[in-house]
Amino acid sequence: MTILLTGFGRFANVERNPSEQIVAALDDSRVDGHRVVGRILPVSARDTPAAVRAALAETEPALAFLLGVAPGRTALTIERVAVNVFDFEDPDNDGEQPVDVPIEEGGPAAYFATLPVRRIVAAWHAAGIPGALSDTAGTYLCNAAMYTALHATADERLPAGFVHLPSLPDEVASQRAPAPSMPLQTQIDGVRIAIEAAVGEAAA
Amino acid sequence: MTILLTGFGRFANVERNPSEQIVAALDDSRVDGHRVVGRILPVSARDTPAAVRAALAETEPALAFLLGVAPGRTALTIERVAVNVFDFEDPDNDGEQPVDVPIEEGGPAAYFATLPVRRIVAAWHAAGIPGALSDTAGTYLCNAAMYTALHATADERLPAGFVHLPSLPDEVASQRAPAPSMPLQTQIDGVRIAIEAAVGEAAA
Amino acid sequence: MTILLTGFGRFANVERNPSEQIVAALDDSRVDGHRVVGRILPVSARDTPAAVRAALAETEPALAFLLGVAPGRTALTIERVAVNVFDFEDPDNDGEQPVDVPIEEGGPAAYFATLPVRRIVAAWHAAGIPGALSDTAGTYLCNAAMYTALHATADERLPAGFVHLPSLPDEVASQRAPAPSMPLQTQIDGVRIAIEAAVGEAAA
Amino acid sequence: MTILLTGFGRFANVERNPSEQIVAALDDSRVDGHRVVGRILPVSARDTPAAVRAALAETEPALAFLLGVAPGRTALTIERVAVNVFDFEDPDNDGEQPVDVPIEEGGPAAYFATLPVRRIVAAWHAAGIPGALSDTAGTYLCNAAMYTALHATADERLPAGFVHLPSLPDEVASQRAPAPSMPLQTQIDGVRIAIEAAVGEAAA
Repeated sequence: MTILLTGFGRFANVERNPSEQIVAALDDSRVDGHRVVGRILPVSARDTPAAVRAALAETEPALAFLLGVAPGRTALTIERVAVNVFDFEDPDNDGEQPVDVPIEEGGPAAYFATLPVRRIVAAWHAAGIPGALSDTAGTYLCNAAMYTALHATADERLPAGFVHLPSLPDEVASQRAPAPSMPLQTQIDGVRIAIEAAVGEAAA
Repeated sequence: MTILLTGFGRFANVERNPSEQIVAALDDSRVDGHRVVGRILPVSARDTPAAVRAALAETEPALAFLLGVAPGRTALTIERVAVNVFDFEDPDNDGEQPVDVPIEEGGPAAYFATLPVRRIVAAWHAAGIPGALSDTAGTYLCNAAMYTALHATADERLPAGFVHLPSLPDEVASQRAPAPSMPLQTQIDGVRIAIEAAVGEAAA
Repeated sequence: MTILLTGFGRFANVERNPSEQIVAALDDSRVDGHRVVGRILPVSARDTPAAVRAALAETEPALAFLLGVAPGRTALTIERVAVNVFDFEDPDNDGEQPVDVPIEEGGPAAYFATLPVRRIVAAWHAAGIPGALSDTAGTYLCNAAMYTALHATADERLPAGFVHLPSLPDEVASQRAPAPSMPLQTQIDGVRIAIEAAVGEAAA
Repeated sequence: MTILLTGFGRFANVERNPSEQIVAALDDSRVDGHRVVGRILPVSARDTPAAVRAALAETEPALAFLLGVAPGRTALTIERVAVNVFDFEDPDNDGEQPVDVPIEEGGPAAYFATLPVRRIVAAWHAAGIPGALSDTAGTYLCNAAMYTALHATADERLPAGFVHLPSLPDEVASQRAPAPSMPLQTQIDGVRIAIEAAVGEAAA
């Protein structure tokens, strides 16, 4: 059984993206005996959806965990829902900044995550890791990756979803009013715990 | 050379006070060859000032670092100033809740920290630890401990000051909207780095 | 042409609900020649959806504006999307507190607002009224009312949507750390301006 | 009996300073039979203190109310204390940006407001106006004006103090995430109410 884990690299004001570092740390590792396959997605309205579909096609995963950073968050947050819209506050890495454009022309307005989100949050709490359920993944490329993964796998009901991560401590250390942060190792542990919780649910 | 390090225990809504755990971790250790002596202060309008004076008298320190938690903070914060007032939003551990009462009858309105606060903040940033200078230590017992230490040592100009700490991760993990947090080990490292910066300044 | 305007009354920690007062102020008034018909909805997982459907059936509106309060918001916010879930942080007025229950069994995950949300935000800004587009209407009864209105009118494409309101000043005046607020008159003006913008769009 | 009321004009990112508009509205008016005399202070580390002293010397007030804006505040806030430091996050209108420089060389670390701050907060609450006591006036020119007024009048114990104001609605209306705001008329009413409360106290 393969577990797809995706992240993003630099964009806008984010220098060190924890999602990229977590993917680097867990790529090709095993969680509960299952192989994690990592992919870094482009930060691009034009290319992100195709990259998500390609990653799904190439890896044929039994579970898909997509990761991204959300500066300002205080906890690991698993997203409840992804919506069918690009509406960017900052340009993507191609310099594009779409406003109110559908990700998938004619697609449904939204998809709910198919991962066991409550079980994942409970696993974080049991481990003493700050974690919560989030009601909005925003309208940038994190949301677009999540929407695309759920749209592409809607028929097969692949368990898929998105975890938004706090900033890394050294990213915010010298800010005038430092944003909340979480160390990389805690974030890696939290993602592994989330995968284990989802694998356990899938096996149950 | 002795370095006095103080913390507080449980109070109001704080179950696990990182200041208590940092004092436990560093008590009787050596930083740059100097011995750290730890003390836990009572959370009490009636007893905190006397406990601060007793700790200073018993340990005759060359440096005094006072610690306390400030839920909601995202970084280690060193306080610029302590003011001569008790004004409690929550009762202390004796159930007292004074409003606009001087800590030191007839004392000056405020004292500035005598630690090298800029040097400490710079040392945190160099280590990648979120840190900042704060303009208010509040009007609870953290402020009162800081005010008392500076008042008691005003003549000798002992380098003294106060570091406010974020919550510990497991304290906030299951909150509906988790408060910002910082792991204990990062907090211990940060306090040690602050002491080193202050020792370096004192030696310079 | 009839314009349906709905609000809610007291619930949880909200004593004075601005949505109820705006409905009282605008009920039976005319905006651009069209008659506003007001309805107060129950705060009830069991009854809110049926009350929304009844209000639509009775008034046969050409536009539907649903209103509710969101303590903590700093501006009038028009919601982009409503999702098919009840997930309550506080009990409703029947004492019910559903978790992850669909509003409409078998309904789509979400609907986008069919009001001209950008035009409405622009009209607020032109009038100097703080206003913004919001990406989440939450998972309480505000979201449920919006979801139900959009679901019930999906075929006819009635322009419908939801405006979340800040607290009223006297509701927060004595809070220890007062929540943001907006005066009732500004809120009434803002809702009237939003209706005018939507009527203008419908006529265009 | 003369009441001195001061404000500031444009600076840094503030276009429309409510303090300037309140001074314009109340200048030369009468509150409880006493004449309000308004002054606009320069936003200048070099010139603000002298302008405060000149205003006090020229008007010989029985009460001094200093006003300034603090973007982000949700309520009228009366400051408890002013500290003897210039430490600017933004340059002043001369382009100066001092760091940790005393306002008054050799002056005490701080002064407490000599206005009846609790009585003022209670008067706001009685009027339904969001209001609170603040523990820090910052380290910019608002704090410097307050410090200077209290230092200059320390011997005579003139009732003097500082009110920090929220942004005006039209200043924040189109911000991506609008800052909290309060209408000008509410702010004018709140300042008049504060003056009345202080006059009442002085008379009592």
